[in-house]
Amino acid sequence: MRKVAVVGVGMGKFGERWEDGLRELSAEAGLRALEDAGITGDDIQALYIGNMSGGRFVGQEHVGALIADAMGLNPIPATRVEAACSSGGLAFREAYLAVASGEFDLVVVGGVEKMTDVLTGQATTTLGGAADQEWETFFGATFPSLYALIARRHMHEFGTTEEQMAKVAVKNHYNGARNPFAQYQREIKIEDVMNSSPVASPLKLLDCSPITDGAAAVVLASEDLARKITDTPVWVRASAQASDSLALHDRKSLTSLNATVVAGKKAFSQAGITPRQVNIAEVHDCFTIAEILAVEDLGFVKKGEGGKAEEDGMFDLNGDISVNTSGGLKACGHPVGATGIKQIVEISLQLRGEAGKRQVDKAEIGLAHNVGGSGATAVVHILSR
Amino acid sequence: MRKVAVVGVGMGKFGERWEDGLRELSAEAGLRALEDAGITGDDIQALYIGNMSGGRFVGQEHVGALIADAMGLNPIPATRVEAACSSGGLAFREAYLAVASGEFDLVVVGGVEKMTDVLTGQATTTLGGAADQEWETFFGATFPSLYALIARRHMHEFGTTEEQMAKVAVKNHYNGARNPFAQYQREIKIEDVMNSSPVASPLKLLDCSPITDGAAAVVLASEDLARKITDTPVWVRASAQASDSLALHDRKSLTSLNATVVAGKKAFSQAGITPRQVNIAEVHDCFTIAEILAVEDLGFVKKGEGGKAEEDGMFDLNGDISVNTSGGLKACGHPVGATGIKQIVEISLQLRGEAGKRQVDKAEIGLAHNVGGSGATAVVHILSR
Repeated sequence: MRKVAVVGVGMGKFGERWEDGLRELSAEAGLRALEDAGITGDDIQALYIGNMSGGRFVGQEHVGALIADAMGLNPIPATRVEAACSSGGLAFREAYLAVASGEFDLVVVGGVEKMTDVLTGQATTTLGGAADQEWETFFGATFPSLYALIARRHMHEFGTTEEQMAKVAVKNHYNGARNPFAQYQREIKIEDVMNSSPVASPLKLLDCSPITDGAAAVVLASEDLARKITDTPVWVRASAQASDSLALHDRKSLTSLNATVVAGKKAFSQAGITPRQVNIAEVHDCFTIAEILAVEDLGFVKKGEGGKAEEDGMFDLNGDISVNTSGGLKACGHPVGATGIKQIVEISLQLRGEAGKRQVDKAEIGLAHNVGGSGATAVVHILSR
Repeated sequence: MRKVAVVGVGMGKFGERWEDGLRELSAEAGLRALEDAGITGDDIQALYIGNMSGGRFVGQEHVGALIADAMGLNPIPATRVEAACSSGGLAFREAYLAVASGEFDLVVVGGVEKMTDVLTGQATTTLGGAADQEWETFFGATFPSLYALIARRHMHEFGTTEEQMAKVAVKNHYNGARNPFAQYQREIKIEDVMNSSPVASPLKLLDCSPITDGAAAVVLASEDLARKITDTPVWVRASAQASDSLALHDRKSLTSLNATVVAGKKAFSQAGITPRQVNIAEVHDCFTIAEILAVEDLGFVKKGEGGKAEEDGMFDLNGDISVNTSGGLKACGHPVGATGIKQIVEISLQLRGEAGKRQVDKAEIGLAHNVGGSGATAVVHILSR
């Protein structure tokens, strides 16, 4: 298959966007990506979009055509992909395959979620659709409670502490404070996390990613076209995806997401690198414990050593591997369908040296890791200059 | 890109399946497709699934991983695609591209919808998510009302009659009566349609496709593998997709679906054939008027001549082109996410000479035409022996 590059990126501010709906958020991000690539809608051959639950959040399915319409791109093919919170990462992968295969030369791929405009409790219920409705959600399980089970078991098996989890939030808020698109642009301290309200023990409010409106988009081009369009192409070096059971009770282990392990190994093999060669990574920190699982399951550290490594600053800005420089899901915000694309936007900005106050000194190889639900889907991409 | 063939097909009975949920319906169809191909789950490299609204119908998103789980296929990549009522056709297209590109050699692609287990009115409301929520559904438009606008305009412009529309239902029930998987396996007469309850004038109950539970699946293989697996491969000769505005008021014409026109032309060009060379076609008859639009927009007859051609029997079983031999959405049923895959199953069975009592004498080239909503997405595939 052909080489493919990211040649344009765009996003709007993540947060509570009361004046904007699904189409406004999407069009804003998409048009900024086109502008960044220096192209117009007439150049675009197809649109892909990641969206988890337009149906339940805003009563709108058929999201692909909706956004092609909003961006003035009809009649090009428009495809929505859904894999819960990994919808964005998976949309990127489908768009990548469509260009790598030769079907298209230039596509735009976005992710979007409009989450805030619902009744109290409805966001949590809707997000529950990412877990197993018949075996988990129906019986009252929410995502904080599922990840609390994982956290409790990780603490039991490996001695991971609540303070180590809190450090993840502190680090990601530090980064988010340097990202003008982040929902929360303020630093917090360990004690802020420790003293925040319990949500599902041991997870507290500041261990949890927020409810967010937002969209992000990138333009993908074939090798020939990429070299014509831009002097700073960001190459897709690997694209991998894996699945697992939706319900936690069907897993062999609570402390490792097998889909991340499988997709990670495949991605490193495709890119021909080892995990420790990665300079920057956006990983799926829907809860602080999830980032600890991710850095272990991706092989940045051994299983069980994630908490200690976080505490020691290994994943701080300009640490061994700078993790979640965007602020992650925790501080940048988590519009579920958009997150996977925002990760690609952040990696691309870092590799291009355009990440402003949060720019990492050495950014040659970046990794994006997007998880659906409690790990039933994982998507891993590796990018480089 | 590589040649790709359908090497296995499977589906369950369409209808009111009170004992079965999303995962049971999907697994039944998927495992039958594997069995038909003579392979096991261990051979399958990826799963694609078309589903419109698991979120609103049964509270379940993350449908790709769910079904991989139900079929025992973890940890293979599992991807859900959504484009309203064309979700199945679009999932088939994404799966086709994944094999044609060389990413995978053998994949299973399904479509599923569980629609009946909801409160009165909720199915119609959920289906409204395929139209423009902010500009159509919110103001009370339902799908019968949108297609009634189209029908009224077609009658005004071209003299199409209610009896000609009724003929579409009569023909499709005739075919459905010969399909053991169809929801309605009984013949009806013109007067039955004309005397049925008005739904949105001029459309009456028997002009409308029903609410249906169901799933369908096919196995796709690369050329090399297809020739090893089966003596009766069904080749994918063309795959095309197009989009249009969601809202009817933004269209240039009410009597033609531009997405069908664009996708159709692209598909005929790819396959190197003219429309009249097609022997059998499954077209998107969500309402009887929609089949008339389809046979015109695909170029089987000139614009405005569809009603008369239906009346004259041109699209009857063993007519010039046998249209909707499965019974179509009208009689076979319309589990929205599954319909596009059921179309491929039917075309494959016909091309293999295995369509039983509804087998067409000459079945060499088949076409599947799947529409999302009132035409904001159209997907066209051409298959041959």
